[in-house]
Amino acid sequence: MEKMIEMMLKLAEEKQYRRLKELLAEMNEVDIAAFIDELDSEKAVVVFRILPKELAADVFACLSVEKQQHIITSITDREVATIIEDLFVDDAVDMLEELPATVVKKVLQNANPDTRALINQFLNYPDNSAGSIMTAEYVGLKKTMTVKEAFDYIRRHGVDKETIYTSYVMNEARQLEGVVTVRDLLMNTYETVIGDIMDTHVIKAVTTDDQEEVADCFQKYGLLNLPVVDHENRLVGIVTVDDIVDVIEQEATEDFEKMAAMAPSERPYLKTGVFQLAKNRIFWLLVLMISSLITGGILAKYENAFAVLPLLVTFIPMLTDTGGNAGSQSSTLIIRGMAVGEIEPADVFKVVWKELRVGTLVGVVLAAVNFVQLLIRFPGQPLVCATVVVSLMATVILAKTIGCMLPMAAKVLHMDPAIMAAPLITTIVDALSLVIYFQLACALLGL
Amino acid sequence: MEKMIEMMLKLAEEKQYRRLKELLAEMNEVDIAAFIDELDSEKAVVVFRILPKELAADVFACLSVEKQQHIITSITDREVATIIEDLFVDDAVDMLEELPATVVKKVLQNANPDTRALINQFLNYPDNSAGSIMTAEYVGLKKTMTVKEAFDYIRRHGVDKETIYTSYVMNEARQLEGVVTVRDLLMNTYETVIGDIMDTHVIKAVTTDDQEEVADCFQKYGLLNLPVVDHENRLVGIVTVDDIVDVIEQEATEDFEKMAAMAPSERPYLKTGVFQLAKNRIFWLLVLMISSLITGGILAKYENAFAVLPLLVTFIPMLTDTGGNAGSQSSTLIIRGMAVGEIEPADVFKVVWKELRVGTLVGVVLAAVNFVQLLIRFPGQPLVCATVVVSLMATVILAKTIGCMLPMAAKVLHMDPAIMAAPLITTIVDALSLVIYFQLACALLGL
Repeated sequence: MEKMIEMMLKLAEEKQYRRLKELLAEMNEVDIAAFIDELDSEKAVVVFRILPKELAADVFACLSVEKQQHIITSITDREVATIIEDLFVDDAVDMLEELPATVVKKVLQNANPDTRALINQFLNYPDNSAGSIMTAEYVGLKKTMTVKEAFDYIRRHGVDKETIYTSYVMNEARQLEGVVTVRDLLMNTYETVIGDIMDTHVIKAVTTDDQEEVADCFQKYGLLNLPVVDHENRLVGIVTVDDIVDVIEQEATEDFEKMAAMAPSERPYLKTGVFQLAKNRIFWLLVLMISSLITGGILAKYENAFAVLPLLVTFIPMLTDTGGNAGSQSSTLIIRGMAVGEIEPADVFKVVWKELRVGTLVGVVLAAVNFVQLLIRFPGQPLVCATVVVSLMATVILAKTIGCMLPMAAKVLHMDPAIMAAPLITTIVDALSLVIYFQLACALLGL
Repeated sequence: MEKMIEMMLKLAEEKQYRRLKELLAEMNEVDIAAFIDELDSEKAVVVFRILPKELAADVFACLSVEKQQHIITSITDREVATIIEDLFVDDAVDMLEELPATVVKKVLQNANPDTRALINQFLNYPDNSAGSIMTAEYVGLKKTMTVKEAFDYIRRHGVDKETIYTSYVMNEARQLEGVVTVRDLLMNTYETVIGDIMDTHVIKAVTTDDQEEVADCFQKYGLLNLPVVDHENRLVGIVTVDDIVDVIEQEATEDFEKMAAMAPSERPYLKTGVFQLAKNRIFWLLVLMISSLITGGILAKYENAFAVLPLLVTFIPMLTDTGGNAGSQSSTLIIRGMAVGEIEPADVFKVVWKELRVGTLVGVVLAAVNFVQLLIRFPGQPLVCATVVVSLMATVILAKTIGCMLPMAAKVLHMDPAIMAAPLITTIVDALSLVIYFQLACALLGL
C-alpha cells in the first residue's frame, strides 16, 4: 500500500491524471481518501474531481475535515449538491458538525429541501444520543407485501440505503410493527406475506437514549443494526454496527482520559491545540494539588517526629506509592467492570469481601519482602522496621477497600465512577497512610 | 424484563411448564439464557429441555460456563450431538475452551466426524489470532454461477451460515477470488454471471494475524465481515463484526489492566478467584515498591536538610503527587493514541514539542496558585516558597516530557507501551522531582 501511494503521488506530481484515474477506479474509498489527504490542497481538488462519480461521495466522507473544507469551498455549487445528496445522512451530519459555519451554510444552501430538513432535524439531537448516531437510510416495508414485492421494492430503492439486510415494517402512522431480514426473505417463498414472517419482538432504541446504552444493546444481542423510534414509537432512523464500533472505542477513550484526571477531548491528540490540552488537564491537577497540600498539612503535625528521627521520612515515597498503586489496581478493575456491565452496585459486598482478602494476601507478601530488606539495612532498629511493615500492610488493605468502594459509591450517587480512579484514590490513600504511619511511629517509638 | 423474569421464575417454581414454554417461545435467545442462568441447576436442565428445538443451540451458546457444563453432563448423548451440530463452529470452540477436559471429551465424542475435525482444527489456532475468532460457516460460490443460481444455492444452504450477506467466490483449489454481497445480487438481473459482478479487491486476513489487527481493519474499512485465508490464500473461515465488538472491548480492558500495573485477567472480575487476582497484582506492586525504596534511598542523602528544616518534608506529597498526575495524563493520552492508531512513533518530535508547551502552561498556573498560598501561609520564608514553586514547575514539565517519551520509546523497542503508564511514570517522576527539590533547597537555602 505504502509503495502504491508513493507511485500515485509521483503520478499526481507529474500530472499524469489519466493513468492516476485508472488506478483510483480500482481502489477502496478509504484508501483513496488516505491518498488525497497526503496531497497538497490544490492537487487534492484536482484528484477529487477526476474520481469516478459514484465514488466521490464515499471518498468525501472519509477525508480529513481540513480537506473536506478545502474541497467544499473550491468546487461548484452543483458539485456540492451532488455530494451532499449522495452522502448518507449520518455521514453528512458528522461532517457538518466539524465544519465552520460559513462552509455549513454553503452546503445546506445546495442541498435539496428534503435533505436539508432531514439534516437539520439530525443536527438537533443531543450529543451522544441514539438520534445523533443514527441514519435515515433504511428500507421500510408494509406487512401486506409479499416476499416478491419486498424484493422488488428493495431492488428499486435499496441502492441508497445504508443497510438493506434488515427491513422495517411500519403501519400507516409510521409506527414500527416488526422487522424482517433479507435472510428471512430468502428462506421463504415469493408468495409469503411479510406480516406472517416478520419478527414482532423488535429490539429498539429511542432517539434520546444514550449512545453507550445503544452500544451495550448491540453487544448483548449481537446486532448488526437497531431501529430508533421517537416517543410515539414512530421509526425515525437506524443505527448500524459500524458506527457502534466507533462508539465503543470513543467511550473507552473517554474513560481512559477521565481515569487519568483529564476532561475528555473532542478531537484526536495531534489535532488538539496546546491551550485546549492544557485546559483539559489543569482542573484536576489543581484539585489534586490542593488536596495533597492538605496531606502536607497533616504531615506538618508530625514535624517533631521526623526532626528526631529523619530516617522515617525516607519511607514516605514507598508507603504512599505502594498505597496508591494498590488502590488504583482495585479501582481500575471495578470501574472497568461496571463500564462493561460485569459488576453492579448490588455486588458491593461480594466485591469488598474479595478485595479485603486480596489486599491481605498482597499486603502480607509486600510486608514480608520489605521486612527482610529492612532487617538487613537497619539491623539495630527493629521498632522502625515494625512501624514501616505494619503501616505498609494496613495501607495496602485500606487502599484496596477504598479503591473498590469509592467507584461503586459514585455509581450509586449517579456520578461517573471513572472519577474515582488512580489520581483521586492515590491522594486519599496518601493522607490516610501517612496518618497511620506516623501515629504508629509515635506510639511504638515514643516520639 | 425484570418483572417478566420474576413471573417466569415463579412459573418454574410452580412447575407450570406449559405456560412457561409459551412465554419462552416468544423470547430472544439472549434473554432466555439470562433467565436459565438464574435457575438452580436442576430446574435449568428441565427448562432447557422444554425449549423449542430450533432455539436450543442458540440459547446454549449464551449460557454461563457453569450452566453449560451442568446441562452437557445431564442430558443424553443424542441431545448433546444435536446441540453441537447446531452451534456455529466459533461458538462451539469458545465453549470448549472453557469446559473441563472430561466434558469436552463427551462433546467431541458426540459430534459427527466432520464437525469434530473442524473443531479440532479451530482449537489449534493460537490464542487471539484471526483463526481463533473466525467461524467456518460462510457461503462459498463459483464465479461461473448466475445470480439466480447463487440465490438458489443460498436458499438451499444459507440457514446454517453465520452470515449470508456476503458470499465468497473460490476457484477449484478453494483459493479466494472475490466477494459478492446479497446487495450486489439483488441489484443485478438473475442472468448476470457472478464473475462479472464480484469484487476482486478483497480485504482479507491470514489465520495467524493478531485479532487486534483484524479489529483495526474492520474499523478502518467499516466491514461487516472479513474472510480469513491460510498461507496459500485458501479460504478457511470468516470473522464477523459481532465478534470484533467483543475483541475491541477485550483489548481495551487489557490496556486498562496493564496501565494500572496488573497482569491482564482471562475472566470477569467476579468469576476470578482471590489467589488469581492477588497473583495478577503482586508482580508490579513488588517492582514498584522496590523502585520507590530506591527513591527513599535518594531521600536519605538529604537527611541533614530536613533535620534542619522539617518544613521541607511537608511539601513532598504535593510535589510527588502533582508530578505523578501530570506525567500520567501525558502517558495515558499517548498510550491510548497509539492503541487506536492516531499517534505513530514517527510523531515523536511533534508530541514532545506539544507536551513541553502544555507542561509549561500547566506548570505556570500550578506554580502561581501555589506561590500565592505559600506567601499567605509562610510570609517570612520567601526562599522556601521559591524552592517549592520552582521545583513544582520543573517537575511538571519534566513529568510531561517523560510521560510522553517513555510510551513511544517502548513502542519503538517493540514493548507494550501500556507498561509505561501511571504507576511506573509516577515512580520515576517521584525520584527525579525529589532530587530537583532537595538540590534546589540545598543551593537556595544553604543547607
